[in-house]
Amino acid sequence: MKTSCSALVGAMVPELRVGNEAGVLLAVDAGGTSTRCVVVTPTGRCLGYGRSGSGNPVAVGLEAAGTSAAAGAATALAHAGVPADGVRSITCAMAGVNPRTPVEVLLRPVRELGVTAAPLFRSDLLAMFFSGTYRDTGYGLVAGTGAAAIRVESGEVVVSADGLGWLLGDDGSGFWIGRRVVRAALADLDHRDGPTALTALLLRELGLAEPSGPPQHGRAEVLQRAVEALYEMRPVELARFARLAFEAGGDATAESIVGAAADALVHSLDAVVVPEVRGPVVLGGGTLALHPTLVDRICDRLSDGGAAPEVRTVSDGLVGAAVLALRDAGVAVDAAVFDTVTSTLAALR
Amino acid sequence: MKTSCSALVGAMVPELRVGNEAGVLLAVDAGGTSTRCVVVTPTGRCLGYGRSGSGNPVAVGLEAAGTSAAAGAATALAHAGVPADGVRSITCAMAGVNPRTPVEVLLRPVRELGVTAAPLFRSDLLAMFFSGTYRDTGYGLVAGTGAAAIRVESGEVVVSADGLGWLLGDDGSGFWIGRRVVRAALADLDHRDGPTALTALLLRELGLAEPSGPPQHGRAEVLQRAVEALYEMRPVELARFARLAFEAGGDATAESIVGAAADALVHSLDAVVVPEVRGPVVLGGGTLALHPTLVDRICDRLSDGGAAPEVRTVSDGLVGAAVLALRDAGVAVDAAVFDTVTSTLAALR
Repeated sequence: MKTSCSALVGAMVPELRVGNEAGVLLAVDAGGTSTRCVVVTPTGRCLGYGRSGSGNPVAVGLEAAGTSAAAGAATALAHAGVPADGVRSITCAMAGVNPRTPVEVLLRPVRELGVTAAPLFRSDLLAMFFSGTYRDTGYGLVAGTGAAAIRVESGEVVVSADGLGWLLGDDGSGFWIGRRVVRAALADLDHRDGPTALTALLLRELGLAEPSGPPQHGRAEVLQRAVEALYEMRPVELARFARLAFEAGGDATAESIVGAAADALVHSLDAVVVPEVRGPVVLGGGTLALHPTLVDRICDRLSDGGAAPEVRTVSDGLVGAAVLALRDAGVAVDAAVFDTVTSTLAALR
Repeated sequence: MKTSCSALVGAMVPELRVGNEAGVLLAVDAGGTSTRCVVVTPTGRCLGYGRSGSGNPVAVGLEAAGTSAAAGAATALAHAGVPADGVRSITCAMAGVNPRTPVEVLLRPVRELGVTAAPLFRSDLLAMFFSGTYRDTGYGLVAGTGAAAIRVESGEVVVSADGLGWLLGDDGSGFWIGRRVVRAALADLDHRDGPTALTALLLRELGLAEPSGPPQHGRAEVLQRAVEALYEMRPVELARFARLAFEAGGDATAESIVGAAADALVHSLDAVVVPEVRGPVVLGGGTLALHPTLVDRICDRLSDGGAAPEVRTVSDGLVGAAVLALRDAGVAVDAAVFDTVTSTLAALR
């Protein structure tokens, strides 16, 4: 099925042929959960799509991030029916790449595919922004496992706020919510705080039943077992408990956590907004994409006491990575090109 | 000096002789920063003191904790001029020991010293409590790197609150304060929050000067470097920045962090207090011992709207480990015995 589809698309688009001067562009959206790749023509037509594992070098290391990017690229190229030497440029939207990053380590697996084009590394937050708009000025607010806000002018990130990681920042993120969910449940178990529906949800999630053994040093056995189970995880994995805040419908503690997360995210956005720069607000990241409640609360706060800005929600940064690849290749991405990218990519996924 | 002193004390106390049925008691107070050991007679007279490295098995592992305990014990025995086979019992106040802990791993280095006495493991929080009082009923509130509250009845911890570690609890602890200090400074650097004196203090602590390079992806270079330096530490090391909150005299953000820490600690204490159980409140742990401001704030809150309870502050749990050793040996620890322990131990340190 994949082969025949690729062959068909390849046959329909002459510019793909090896040796064609235009060539195709390879766009990579490297995320913490998965990496997404798309092969796009200079006209904005998406020809092949590939998905692989985590591509966040901060989370999994440079080598693993490079391997994920290469795996996604190989799938996308095969899907498109384009050989490696037909790739004219690589644009990689990835967190944590700076001038001190040894990018040759990242690139090695891609080079081994036979892709020799020069790479450009772009902000993953900027890719998220351009997944929601072709306009080159506006704001982005991303909440996945982490959280950050950006102001975009002339197609570049000019100011960012937060995005400092689970330990130092990421206010309002999936980790931030998940950690509060866990702490609220544990504070219920040792009676520091009042009862919350989150406790039963957390214990179920951890596979722990009600207390069975005697307390140790004045601590309930179920609490001790929960603490031990939670410290066996990597800290950032507490993000997986964020969804409990949205499942505990009506629980006052859960509502308060979700409300505080919305406040925290708007607070980060406020730090980058200036009245003289107007444009759409693009909301992205898994925590926002999965929880419309949180988006509704953010929209409510954004429209407090004034006209609501134009808000768009996107699920990942792949459209934007393709837009950045086009912009990097000198293509003027207008509404029509943007529509071509979004519609052809949607048809591939 | 040490040798002559030990010889003198040994000569004065006949009950120390090898083969004496009474023997001496070895008390160990195993903390995260250091381990303290004392050799005490059944009358409460402290004969030898030793100090070694971290003895918290959660922080450094069972083997290293056992090695620290043995090193401290060896010093204390040499100081006392007591041979290993003169030790009649070992009482070890240590966090994180439960019925599933393989204590033989912990004990191996102590056994290698020739100490064959049976060990008793006791709560480090209970040892902190008994460092402040001989009475067997009351409350303990400890804030070092971590934080916890306990209610003590008939010499045992009957209820505890918090003490759940840096990621899941420890509200008001050194880590909790240090993390807030760092987050406030970083939120100042990217203009999410207002300016605070903590920023300059943190940057000085990290050896970072003012911004020197251009921003990356809209983030100031000094912020990026601070984030990288902080993630190179183990998370729990953020506790070292707690003292900045006390050094930033008059800074509103710092004051607010210290006030919130006091509130959080009193909140944990409130969770264990019941009106029918009266007794002293013992405050312990490095964060409280080093910062009288925090103790004052806690005392203010404890006396809100009523008579202030009797509050005592202790610097570590070694007196209490000796008291527990005596109690475990069947000695009735009254005010006189307690005074003997505290005065003879103070003379040794």
